[in-house]
Amino acid sequence: MTTNQLVEEIKKKKSFLCIGLDVDLNKIPKHLLKEEDPIFAFNKAIIDATHHLCVAYKPNTAFYEAYGLKGWQALEKTINYLNENHPEIFTIADAKRGDIGNTSTMYAKAFFEDLAFDSVTVAPYMGKDSVEPFLAFENKHTILLALTSNQGAFDFQTKTIEGKEVYKQVLETSKTWTNSENLMYVVGATKAEYLADIRKIIPNRFLLVPGVGAQGGNLQDVCKYGMNESVGLLINSSRGIIYASTDATFAQEAAQKAEKLQQEMAEVLNAASL
Amino acid sequence: MTTNQLVEEIKKKKSFLCIGLDVDLNKIPKHLLKEEDPIFAFNKAIIDATHHLCVAYKPNTAFYEAYGLKGWQALEKTINYLNENHPEIFTIADAKRGDIGNTSTMYAKAFFEDLAFDSVTVAPYMGKDSVEPFLAFENKHTILLALTSNQGAFDFQTKTIEGKEVYKQVLETSKTWTNSENLMYVVGATKAEYLADIRKIIPNRFLLVPGVGAQGGNLQDVCKYGMNESVGLLINSSRGIIYASTDATFAQEAAQKAEKLQQEMAEVLNAASL
Repeated sequence: MTTNQLVEEIKKKKSFLCIGLDVDLNKIPKHLLKEEDPIFAFNKAIIDATHHLCVAYKPNTAFYEAYGLKGWQALEKTINYLNENHPEIFTIADAKRGDIGNTSTMYAKAFFEDLAFDSVTVAPYMGKDSVEPFLAFENKHTILLALTSNQGAFDFQTKTIEGKEVYKQVLETSKTWTNSENLMYVVGATKAEYLADIRKIIPNRFLLVPGVGAQGGNLQDVCKYGMNESVGLLINSSRGIIYASTDATFAQEAAQKAEKLQQEMAEVLNAASL
Repeated sequence: MTTNQLVEEIKKKKSFLCIGLDVDLNKIPKHLLKEEDPIFAFNKAIIDATHHLCVAYKPNTAFYEAYGLKGWQALEKTINYLNENHPEIFTIADAKRGDIGNTSTMYAKAFFEDLAFDSVTVAPYMGKDSVEPFLAFENKHTILLALTSNQGAFDFQTKTIEGKEVYKQVLETSKTWTNSENLMYVVGATKAEYLADIRKIIPNRFLLVPGVGAQGGNLQDVCKYGMNESVGLLINSSRGIIYASTDATFAQEAAQKAEKLQQEMAEVLNAASL
């Protein structure tokens, strides 16, 4: 998917909502555990109920790997279901990978070719030659961790190198990499006031923003500081939507939570004439 | 496995060799492609021929994920084969994971419980609460990226925060984390002279050292600067051993390469009376 296609979809749906598919078998409705593949059954119900309200889905690979082969199979079924039924929806493998060059190429093949995701999240610690193999894939997007939404972000990311915070160094440096137009960035919503500075460095790139809701971030603040003229934001909510209820009506209740966020987003987009 | 058990095994085998199982179907002997599971067939042959020469095996997860479900299955068969036949050998899931707390817990379950590896490599970018969930597992080891062996290590890792390089900040800071006794560190062999400084910060921790051979590192230098009184080193070789040949005799030729390194290691250990 191209960035333009994503922007069109955002404008059409009046939504820049990304729904995180972080499926924990201890948290899904008990009646689904009788299904042959409870993880996929859960995802399918959530997707069927929410696809008109969001522009992206983001399975976090950890939740699938934890269930071994069956988990990986559920991930494969989920991405195939999305690509077959909702090819207009942007898909994110939240995998936070990154390794030396030839190894990053194998990860890129895993997520861009074998699983056919539109994008993958990547950690920046190993630098340029660990990220460029991902950037080499046309119409695929590499979402680099910049400033994450957890407390540990303050351990290294906000420390200062030569007068500039590490996450800003990551933004600046990554702009110089080959095919950097395929980059997007993870920026946590819990630090919305940082977004103004971030936009000075990368005015045009999309930001994937976790941490709205459960982790305390505020949608209005994120939009105020982070939105650009192509919207430029994907705001993720995982637990706040998918675990809205464990009743038989869980998918409808998830859709209600998603719709509430979508309507807030529509207001923001309308106010900005986007 | 406890660290003491690993040290005993090193002394018994006179080896601190780790063999990287980075299986690329384009590089393995052609006759194996006829097998039902070529990746596992390759690994089994390599393990059968080299297990007496090494103390650790390190499959890099990227090479398995790139082949989808079949790849994950081959990884599962490989670790099961090792745990059943060679429980005395230390196993490393080279996965370079790391995420917010509840997600890192899922990764830890994937590698420590579901796949039953002894250790996993983890990226430090997201800080304390992204690493501590791994450290919570008893007799399991978290191998934190400090200074990697690739060119990109100079993009961020060697930059200076408050007068100290980022990788040294990672070493210092991680020492304060809960259960930090379960930490080991990745330190690339291509920067052997850095090891003296690193040992001042973490005198007692094990170091996993990639980059000897193919990436240009020197075994003697690594030992000179990095060895401690419990040896404290695992030196990895992947391509240099497993792709020694693509003939029918590939496993024997791999064993010859492994033996050459093991004998160098035995000399170093004998000279140090270890």
